[in-house]
Amino acid sequence: MTFDGIRDFIGEDLKKIEKLISRNFQSDVLLIPTIANYLIGAGGKKFRPMLLVLSSKLSGYSNGDRHILNSCIVELIHVATLLHDDVVDEALIRRGNPSVNKKWGNEASVLVGDYLFSKSLSLLALGDDSRITQSISFASQELAEGEIIGLVTKGNFDITEEEYMDIIYKKTASLISVSCKIGAILGNISTDKEKALTNFGLKIGIAYQLIDDVLDYTGDQEKLGKTIGLDFQRKKITLPLITLFQKVSADEKIKIQNLIFSHNNYMGKLKTLVEMMEHHNTIEYAMGKAKNYVEEAKKEMEIFDDSPYLVAILSLADHIIARKN
Amino acid sequence: MTFDGIRDFIGEDLKKIEKLISRNFQSDVLLIPTIANYLIGAGGKKFRPMLLVLSSKLSGYSNGDRHILNSCIVELIHVATLLHDDVVDEALIRRGNPSVNKKWGNEASVLVGDYLFSKSLSLLALGDDSRITQSISFASQELAEGEIIGLVTKGNFDITEEEYMDIIYKKTASLISVSCKIGAILGNISTDKEKALTNFGLKIGIAYQLIDDVLDYTGDQEKLGKTIGLDFQRKKITLPLITLFQKVSADEKIKIQNLIFSHNNYMGKLKTLVEMMEHHNTIEYAMGKAKNYVEEAKKEMEIFDDSPYLVAILSLADHIIARKN
Repeated sequence: MTFDGIRDFIGEDLKKIEKLISRNFQSDVLLIPTIANYLIGAGGKKFRPMLLVLSSKLSGYSNGDRHILNSCIVELIHVATLLHDDVVDEALIRRGNPSVNKKWGNEASVLVGDYLFSKSLSLLALGDDSRITQSISFASQELAEGEIIGLVTKGNFDITEEEYMDIIYKKTASLISVSCKIGAILGNISTDKEKALTNFGLKIGIAYQLIDDVLDYTGDQEKLGKTIGLDFQRKKITLPLITLFQKVSADEKIKIQNLIFSHNNYMGKLKTLVEMMEHHNTIEYAMGKAKNYVEEAKKEMEIFDDSPYLVAILSLADHIIARKN
Repeated sequence: MTFDGIRDFIGEDLKKIEKLISRNFQSDVLLIPTIANYLIGAGGKKFRPMLLVLSSKLSGYSNGDRHILNSCIVELIHVATLLHDDVVDEALIRRGNPSVNKKWGNEASVLVGDYLFSKSLSLLALGDDSRITQSISFASQELAEGEIIGLVTKGNFDITEEEYMDIIYKKTASLISVSCKIGAILGNISTDKEKALTNFGLKIGIAYQLIDDVLDYTGDQEKLGKTIGLDFQRKKITLPLITLFQKVSADEKIKIQNLIFSHNNYMGKLKTLVEMMEHHNTIEYAMGKAKNYVEEAKKEMEIFDDSPYLVAILSLADHIIARKN
């Protein structure tokens, strides 16, 4: 199934989700719908809602719209995080357009992010399901913690692969995993199957971020809709760089550090780094790791009987590796 | 009852609350307890927890520690807001010490604020009381909305008293009001009494912010623990200035605007503005309005029988007017 094929497959639900998200952006305070619609207009894959919808259907949930409400909650948290990330990263471009902080300032990014987060809290309260509230709140907390670890390890060239994996688990995989888990909770399936779906989400979430970090070095800016090479510019040490450090001599390591800390010839530096990574196969290593996680994720799903929903969710997992944006 | 007298009166509970807050600051990510303890070390009146505890006792709640948990939730949301406010306002000083954004950067303020907010969400989920969750989430949303209206009306010299009152209702009074309401919910009192406590909180919350805005012009920096004159420097048009505009000629209005938009002699400008405000009695007007709100708030409480808790919560309302910080 292609990515667009999966989207079509659950198109009705995705439309309802987009409608509900838009409705939750409405406010007399015009800056809120303006910024929110700007972000929505700029697209966004709705990856987490897609997973939540597919997980709920796979789990047999069919008698209500709680998958719509919860998809909206998860997406609002995600968008709120993007807004705050852009402040932290001083991002200039997001989804192919000038970032919100670039266009409206850091203050607007911080406050509209807060608004979307508190809105998601209101919707959670409306849903009034304590297991879902607990799962989402725990994921939000891990997400915030992951962001902070990411911040304090910026520029730390001694960060280990294990520490890096902990960051991406927290800042990305936890919310993706909880999206799958909520689907399982809605469908009220067995504990084993719920665990399988949760682990599936966790593993594809890790793969998702691994690929994100690879694309920051090798991606096509136009397809990605954002500037590449931002991670090393922001001194974010991701897997292709961590493993590069392990493979080069102490002298070369210092050379790379100086390269990263110098302030000129950005495209040249990116090219040099990517060449070194290709020479030492560290991009290949990160890609391989992502592929392994996706394979392991798919294995988790063997507990489910064959169905179009299973095919779709497994295809979505494959898409993570193939994606160019 | 003096302010310290009220604190002593519920000292046991306040100690438990501070302990629980500290416990919720703990994290392997050292930056979190470091920043959080820095903020706690710098004091903070715990005004909202005091109100919540007194409201719960006044409502007859005595068989549990849910007032401790909920006080911690409300205070965490408040501190998270302060952290984000400081980024938006580019504050340099908070509670007498360098602000967190000044000391650790905007990124840390944004992310630790997010962490505290998500932590409060986790505690809410733990409490698992849908009426409380709904009330707090609605207040958080109003708070975020109030912050955004505050941002978009910055530098708008045509803001009306009504619009100003809407902002302070949302950004300050809603969380203070919900603190009182939660006490009522915990005590499971009659709808009338719950409404009275909620309105009491709303009215003293408005008075609280009115006084805050007055103190920004007339306060004693040392007692306040923060720089004064920040509002007009940040182009926040508060009541003393709004009513001044109504009283001066068109020419004088332009003179004041130029004064505010010019970039030099800050202390001189503050002195000039305060003199004009005193001449036109606009500070007196704002103070009078605050006093009226406190009196109206106290009237709401006539529905309650006399008790030491009633005396304490009414004294706390009076303190708002008398406070110097």
